[in-house]
Amino acid sequence: MLPPMTTSTFDAMWQALLPVGRDVTSGGYRRFAWTEPDLTAREWFAGEAEARGLTLVVDRNGNQWAWSGDPDRDGPGVVVGSHLDSVPDGGAFDGPLGVVSAFAALDLLRERGVAFDRPLAVANFTDEEGARFGVACAGSRLLTGVLDPDRARGLRDGDGNTMAGAMRAAGQDVTHLGADRETLGRIGTFVELHVEQGPGLVDLGRPVGVAGRIWPHGRWRLDFHGEANHAGTTRLSDRKDPMLALARAVLAARSQAEQYDALATIGRLRVEPGGTNAVPSLVQAWLDARGPDEAVVRAVVDGVGRESGATPVEESWTPAVDLDGGLRERLATLLDGAPVLPTGAGHDAGILAAAGIPAAMLFVRNPTGVSHSPAEHAERDDCLAGVAALATVLEELGR
Amino acid sequence: MLPPMTTSTFDAMWQALLPVGRDVTSGGYRRFAWTEPDLTAREWFAGEAEARGLTLVVDRNGNQWAWSGDPDRDGPGVVVGSHLDSVPDGGAFDGPLGVVSAFAALDLLRERGVAFDRPLAVANFTDEEGARFGVACAGSRLLTGVLDPDRARGLRDGDGNTMAGAMRAAGQDVTHLGADRETLGRIGTFVELHVEQGPGLVDLGRPVGVAGRIWPHGRWRLDFHGEANHAGTTRLSDRKDPMLALARAVLAARSQAEQYDALATIGRLRVEPGGTNAVPSLVQAWLDARGPDEAVVRAVVDGVGRESGATPVEESWTPAVDLDGGLRERLATLLDGAPVLPTGAGHDAGILAAAGIPAAMLFVRNPTGVSHSPAEHAERDDCLAGVAALATVLEELGR
Repeated sequence: MLPPMTTSTFDAMWQALLPVGRDVTSGGYRRFAWTEPDLTAREWFAGEAEARGLTLVVDRNGNQWAWSGDPDRDGPGVVVGSHLDSVPDGGAFDGPLGVVSAFAALDLLRERGVAFDRPLAVANFTDEEGARFGVACAGSRLLTGVLDPDRARGLRDGDGNTMAGAMRAAGQDVTHLGADRETLGRIGTFVELHVEQGPGLVDLGRPVGVAGRIWPHGRWRLDFHGEANHAGTTRLSDRKDPMLALARAVLAARSQAEQYDALATIGRLRVEPGGTNAVPSLVQAWLDARGPDEAVVRAVVDGVGRESGATPVEESWTPAVDLDGGLRERLATLLDGAPVLPTGAGHDAGILAAAGIPAAMLFVRNPTGVSHSPAEHAERDDCLAGVAALATVLEELGR
Repeated sequence: MLPPMTTSTFDAMWQALLPVGRDVTSGGYRRFAWTEPDLTAREWFAGEAEARGLTLVVDRNGNQWAWSGDPDRDGPGVVVGSHLDSVPDGGAFDGPLGVVSAFAALDLLRERGVAFDRPLAVANFTDEEGARFGVACAGSRLLTGVLDPDRARGLRDGDGNTMAGAMRAAGQDVTHLGADRETLGRIGTFVELHVEQGPGLVDLGRPVGVAGRIWPHGRWRLDFHGEANHAGTTRLSDRKDPMLALARAVLAARSQAEQYDALATIGRLRVEPGGTNAVPSLVQAWLDARGPDEAVVRAVVDGVGRESGATPVEESWTPAVDLDGGLRERLATLLDGAPVLPTGAGHDAGILAAAGIPAAMLFVRNPTGVSHSPAEHAERDDCLAGVAALATVLEELGR
């Protein structure tokens, strides 16, 4: 379907990224914002931009842009892209597929000799997963002014390093973080291609789909306080063991999500002091909750707090995002009636849409539906179909 | 009660150890075997030995001995002491009180001009807590041949360092680890003074007690396997979430322990990949179980496995230890009818007793009963009463 040259540059880009930040034991990726693997991926992005004669711009918040044409002279352009960072032991596709496909779609249109009236860009949003500092979509949230720059600078990773320190160590100035109207003004339309994170396209038998509503979602911290004590000498009746409250929270998260047809997950824990023979003094759990509307999500979180005796502390909240409806219908029609799928995952496209920028997403079929895991996968033919679809969209929007 | 010189050297020793490995945030201690704080504590021990003209011997397994007299010439001696390492965020007393009191008891007897027929020694057993490499009483278990030296050398800490590497880095030869009949042959009797790890002496209104039976106890690892997946896109019905099994295990540990009048604790966890927005692929939990007899402990562990669907993997097992009955009665009588208290905690004295060495323990009153915590405490007067009791015991046994 695609000309051999596009296919081979796609393959070459894919191969170049495959080893970056890969954990040999798990086979998954550990590309956390501003760590060595992330910096390697950013260098790769700069190299791909240069190889195509694109103008590399790193904005005040660390997001990378590779421009063809000049949006400051010719008006807002069409931007395609995604992110290159990962969750702990994430898969190879979540993020990188969108960036690689963006470059490949541009290659395809150039090979076909398509001329554009509007500027085009490939984007790499920094720190989309929030795996290191706890705030997802940090790059686009800073850009749009949703994330306070002082709060961002002070966020700490598990080793106590601040985001400001990590960015500075990577050569990124942090004095001008925050809302950036100049950069936002260059984005006429944003389209993000992403591997699907569920089995929707498998069920429908289609390689490519279009994103519908992004569910509202948030993260809450639950602090269960107890009293550290010796596991071998402290009578059960004398214990204040916070692990029991954690157990109730885990079971409540599942039962509340079932009751409300929502999603709730506890996937991250911290135990102090964490000794085999010590009753913990503190157990911290992070609750991820999502649902079709805000009332449902709040009900789930309240239920977990009520049943476990903790007061959930909101660490982030993202309202529901309805991606641009007209744009969505236009793309679905353009792509031979591609199906429209809602999603529970947050994305930079959602952050931009919430800031009023026309934004859309394309999903590429995921045969197992598994995501945020080394087992995450997409077939090469489906990835190439994604490139072709993205090129079709670019050609339409770039005119 | 004690002469001022003994009191002041006791206080000076206590003050010297107080800052070693202290975490300023929690106020607790992080003196793990062969780490910098542990090496500082070992240097302190060597200095105290030298200051008293005692002969410092470091045995093949890294345990420290400070001898007065020559056990190879004059026969097995009386050994008093404990350990200097700690659990994560442990208290100041668990271990150090026994070593400091041993030196202070020796000082007291010298000040009184007591002459001995038998050699005496103060001992510091290495790696009693097993906080770093997972095996408690590693020093005494190696010494008595209960811990296989090849297994010990290969034990790894959370950062992947082996015990062999850690010992070598500290200048300890590891080629001759294991059963050491020569060192064991020097111990005629061992007496360990320890802060009580429960409120038994508080309830009885006594400052010092004598240990009775040490409950059998063990550690088991529970591996709950799941499938890593995106918390925002994976339907509940498609999930294999191991956190739910963990919750069942935590609740089962409590209910089984209640049912059998035993103790069961889950105080240490590991979650992979550990992302807020990822269903875990693996949750590991460590179960600490203890009870009045082996059948009871096994029943508790089996019950936890059955109710959570995991197969408990035994990481360590310590049978019940009845400390030398004749010695125990002799000490209780000598100490004005000091009460005899059973304990759920393992100790080096128990390991030596199981190897056939006459061993006893003295407990010092703990006003809150809290142990393995920064809040662990003993009043200075009770500590000094412990020193006086230990001196009385030394004088009796050393003749």
